[in-house]
Amino acid sequence: MSAPSAAAPRLHWSAEGVTLWLADRMILRHAADRPALFVGRGAARVRMDRGNFALADRLEERIALRHATPLQEGGDGAGLLLAPAPGAAPLLRVRLEADGLALEPLDPALNRFWLRLVAEPGERLWGGGEQMSYVDMAGRRFPFWTSEPGIGRDKASPVTFEADREGGAGGDYWTTNYPQPTLLSSRRYALHVETSAYSCFDFTDPTGHEIEAWAIPARIRLAAAPRFAGLVTILSDWFGRPPRLPRWAYEGAIIGLKDGAASFARLETILAAGAAVSGLWCEDWVGVRQTSFGRRLFWDWRANAARYPDLPARIAALAARGIRFLGYVNPYLAVDGALYGEAQAAGLLALRLDADAPYHVDFGEFEAAIVDFTRPEAIDWFAERVIGRELLDAGLSGWMADFGEYLPVDLRLADGSDPLLAHNRWPLLWAEVNRRGIAGRGRTGDALFFMRAGFSGLSGLCPLLWAGDQLVDFSRHDGIGTVVRAALSAGLVGNAYHHGDLGGYTSLYGVRRTPELLMRWSELAAFTPVMRSHEGNRPEENLQLDQDATVLAHFARMSRVHAALAPYVARLCEEAVATGLPLQRPLFLDHEDDPACWGIETAYGYGRDLIVAPVLEAGMARARPYLPAGRCWIHLWTGACHAGGAAADVPAPLGAPPVFYAEDSPFAPLFGAIGRDFALA
Amino acid sequence: MSAPSAAAPRLHWSAEGVTLWLADRMILRHAADRPALFVGRGAARVRMDRGNFALADRLEERIALRHATPLQEGGDGAGLLLAPAPGAAPLLRVRLEADGLALEPLDPALNRFWLRLVAEPGERLWGGGEQMSYVDMAGRRFPFWTSEPGIGRDKASPVTFEADREGGAGGDYWTTNYPQPTLLSSRRYALHVETSAYSCFDFTDPTGHEIEAWAIPARIRLAAAPRFAGLVTILSDWFGRPPRLPRWAYEGAIIGLKDGAASFARLETILAAGAAVSGLWCEDWVGVRQTSFGRRLFWDWRANAARYPDLPARIAALAARGIRFLGYVNPYLAVDGALYGEAQAAGLLALRLDADAPYHVDFGEFEAAIVDFTRPEAIDWFAERVIGRELLDAGLSGWMADFGEYLPVDLRLADGSDPLLAHNRWPLLWAEVNRRGIAGRGRTGDALFFMRAGFSGLSGLCPLLWAGDQLVDFSRHDGIGTVVRAALSAGLVGNAYHHGDLGGYTSLYGVRRTPELLMRWSELAAFTPVMRSHEGNRPEENLQLDQDATVLAHFARMSRVHAALAPYVARLCEEAVATGLPLQRPLFLDHEDDPACWGIETAYGYGRDLIVAPVLEAGMARARPYLPAGRCWIHLWTGACHAGGAAADVPAPLGAPPVFYAEDSPFAPLFGAIGRDFALA
Repeated sequence: MSAPSAAAPRLHWSAEGVTLWLADRMILRHAADRPALFVGRGAARVRMDRGNFALADRLEERIALRHATPLQEGGDGAGLLLAPAPGAAPLLRVRLEADGLALEPLDPALNRFWLRLVAEPGERLWGGGEQMSYVDMAGRRFPFWTSEPGIGRDKASPVTFEADREGGAGGDYWTTNYPQPTLLSSRRYALHVETSAYSCFDFTDPTGHEIEAWAIPARIRLAAAPRFAGLVTILSDWFGRPPRLPRWAYEGAIIGLKDGAASFARLETILAAGAAVSGLWCEDWVGVRQTSFGRRLFWDWRANAARYPDLPARIAALAARGIRFLGYVNPYLAVDGALYGEAQAAGLLALRLDADAPYHVDFGEFEAAIVDFTRPEAIDWFAERVIGRELLDAGLSGWMADFGEYLPVDLRLADGSDPLLAHNRWPLLWAEVNRRGIAGRGRTGDALFFMRAGFSGLSGLCPLLWAGDQLVDFSRHDGIGTVVRAALSAGLVGNAYHHGDLGGYTSLYGVRRTPELLMRWSELAAFTPVMRSHEGNRPEENLQLDQDATVLAHFARMSRVHAALAPYVARLCEEAVATGLPLQRPLFLDHEDDPACWGIETAYGYGRDLIVAPVLEAGMARARPYLPAGRCWIHLWTGACHAGGAAADVPAPLGAPPVFYAEDSPFAPLFGAIGRDFALA
Repeated sequence: MSAPSAAAPRLHWSAEGVTLWLADRMILRHAADRPALFVGRGAARVRMDRGNFALADRLEERIALRHATPLQEGGDGAGLLLAPAPGAAPLLRVRLEADGLALEPLDPALNRFWLRLVAEPGERLWGGGEQMSYVDMAGRRFPFWTSEPGIGRDKASPVTFEADREGGAGGDYWTTNYPQPTLLSSRRYALHVETSAYSCFDFTDPTGHEIEAWAIPARIRLAAAPRFAGLVTILSDWFGRPPRLPRWAYEGAIIGLKDGAASFARLETILAAGAAVSGLWCEDWVGVRQTSFGRRLFWDWRANAARYPDLPARIAALAARGIRFLGYVNPYLAVDGALYGEAQAAGLLALRLDADAPYHVDFGEFEAAIVDFTRPEAIDWFAERVIGRELLDAGLSGWMADFGEYLPVDLRLADGSDPLLAHNRWPLLWAEVNRRGIAGRGRTGDALFFMRAGFSGLSGLCPLLWAGDQLVDFSRHDGIGTVVRAALSAGLVGNAYHHGDLGGYTSLYGVRRTPELLMRWSELAAFTPVMRSHEGNRPEENLQLDQDATVLAHFARMSRVHAALAPYVARLCEEAVATGLPLQRPLFLDHEDDPACWGIETAYGYGRDLIVAPVLEAGMARARPYLPAGRCWIHLWTGACHAGGAAADVPAPLGAPPVFYAEDSPFAPLFGAIGRDFALA
């Protein structure tokens, strides 16, 4: 599935040492007194508390591979043999390939790897998977280990302080459900570390970037291209072209309610307000249990007739009106559910180290087992028995495929693999379960699942990301704005479709939804591929769409804007399938010759022809978004023209988020009609 | 000054490798597949904000020295030559000495060192300098870098969270003004790392303790002894026998007031309440400046006639009544003071890296320069010009010799030394300045200075420690109890005399003194060598001794108890000078055959014959302190007898802290009289 890189890596040997080049870009500079490669040994120390991890390394050795010689086979350009010193046994073989470096440790005890990359002043470094806090990673350090995203994600925030006190749940700027050791440099090259081990990018040293991995990676993939968009297509080739997003998913909003049978009546209220609705999402379709965190779901993945009586008839009635029904599933089985017993009897559960008994994970006032997806029959069982029979056969058209980040490292897996290496792969196995379950019922391209957990390769397996569990606020590192950064970073490494929980999710430590937040989030969600609302973790304590007439009318109007954009979005989906370009994209992707676009992380191109600068702060009445040079941009709500290459100054009241379309877009008539139809009074 | 160790280290070579022994204790076990020694290279990254440091290592190499061979010279027992592998160039020479290992790096680029010590289950590890949170360091990691102690010192405390937000000032369990890389193991051996570089003891791995240093230490000192007390004497030999404490220092309380001339009238109130007073300590004798932290001193070390008119006459009048006058000094010079100009003109100030201009340190709303004590004439100048002429000649009998922890690492020192290596030595240079200033006036053994900053070797230079800046509360990691732990840990490595700020110091973020705290602290201070009160950083917002009749009466009574103990304390001081044993000591030091004593950190022996179990929590009415086996202990306030080897159950109202004396003590008549004279009504 890999396209050849536009520029294969080359070595250049000199008296000082050896350098590695991609076309005219020096990537590595290695000399005996300034080595670029290191190997070593260490022992990981891992603590997990409900998906929040603390990892530390007990480092035994870090060996500078000072002595580089050309590989005997194939001439000077074939690769490197690396040793600590002349005469010492070589420890690493590096073979050049068309799109990178194949690495081979020559001592099986080695389990640590470091690589120093050439750094340039002012270099920007994007990627890292789905990064919530920073799209440009320059100047910071980013560990890659799938985990809970954290609550507050800011050590200076009182919310994070409180969450940290309760099990280290506060997170930090780099904690993410979907990490990926891939970077895209403003030097117009991309690098990917091919390992599922814990790894880390350290961009804090201006004299060189340092990559660390707790394994010798199989390969360091490299690619260069003249334009950023070309690089993104290469990354999409590497990690898998996204499946086509089902059309129903963007032709109306998906209403999230988890109120049991009352959800249907509440949906009618929302429909009556004029909302364009294509789906009803009831994550509590499996029943609930109450915990101190909030009302949680019953993790036994079967329709719960007590909470949802007559569900088949309900689903059929909705279908007749063009509304899909969606549910929820995750890869764990509550120990007090029926599926747990089935899976245990079939020997499909991951085991404890100290007993031939299923490993139980504490999920906060209840425990669940882990279906061991390293066993092929466990994937088959979950795909057929759960996804097929319980979800699709029950009439679901989609679901949140939650979690995937919790694989502990102190358990036994059926294939004998090291949990430290399986941990980051787990989201991929989980995506494969869902993908295969849908394929088994012939519903590929129609049924939809969305995930928050991810790792390198997710883009080819999972049709839709969601940005995890934001706080229900405007906070810098865990509020509404992180959804935008998440979309942009994930999109750059191959994930074309992204969305978030409209209204946010986490309400704890006094953080509560305001009407303004719900409305701003409605505006943002309307200009993303999927507009799905969420009641949050504590629905009773937080404002809901159907509880405030102003909020509801605003949402309904935005859902109609969203639906009206469907023809344009369909075109973007075609482009995504063809090129891997994401629907939401940093402005520099289509406007890379305008350097003013490079640092913008809170506005985005929605495709090439729309600029969306959502309001991500409270109390904003006007906005001054920068518009890319070289085109003329029309303000969606007023029709006013703004020349690119400068900031526009526009009103941004509730209901009119700063959105602009290119005058020369083939969709200009559609955009013009939307602007007229939905102009504020 | 070094006494020969009771057991010189020996090597034992075998087919597996080599082991190092102290008598029958295996200290190191080294084999090719399990090396005990490592060297490497790294670059320190240091951030400082007002004495709060964040240190990180950019580690380049960590080389396992797998290959050990006997030194050619002197036979198998003489030492080790260590190399990464057979045939590789050796990198470290280790030569056995009577009391340790002399280390010699064979590559000048090496600047990192690690040593793995044999660990035993249940082993206790005391020492580390002055540790506020844990006397027993087992199971935790302790960096050694003199710094501000931190505010709250507990990442789970809201106070620490607030302080961390303001410049990273919150600290942690290991932050201390006085670190020292010395350990005393329950295996009855001691180890000291002879380097002033940043170092660290890591006791978190049950398979071995790891010592790290950011330099190759000159030596690893080792000693074993059959009894703990013998080890403490050896450590005192190593680091310097404490000078004799002046008798006046413990014959009454030292009253801390910083109210300008009003201090004298307030002292009269305290005297009128019946307090036994031997000194008046006015740290504001140099004048004040107001900052948001509180009222701070004017750092130009001369009597301030505006704030203290007629000071010589005042001092003389106090002296006539047997009351000494004490002041304050620190090693920095405010840039707006007169001494700054003198020192700058004489070229005595540390310089910036980027200019031939004095380096200015931000101390929070004002700046100060650093007198460069690596220049001998700077030590002379400060000793004579400041300590001699401004302090002693003005009539001071003592002072707080504050600070010493702030030496930044980005400045130029006169002797060309690396600030990273000078940083930890700075408190020693500062102590030497004070010592020499006093000696220059012939006042050794009479004039007294007390320091919070320290490092290996302080005990021979500074006659008295004080425990730094506690919060004015009972909190676990920064409240009253930390003074006890500080005394016990510092005492074990040779510091015989210790005390704290009676009432605590830091009042921030809503932490305020209660009457109960002041009274409990009076009780604690009465049973320490020096009973010195402090108004704290924000006197106006906090209760003072003379503001509450009950508190004052209680203090006065405790000061008389303190004074009454003087004959016993004098005897303890003699013992300290003879043996190095600290006045306040962990119970196991005199009762090591009772293992129940080993884990006790909040009660102490005050000498061999008193057990002090101060009340360190709010709201306590009774206490159940453990009493060492083998003696009979008499409750000071009631005369009730308690057999050792069990916990006593005693009333502990305000005014009667749990204190016991040994029935067989030669001082039993004195203690009995005190108990009778001061019995509660």
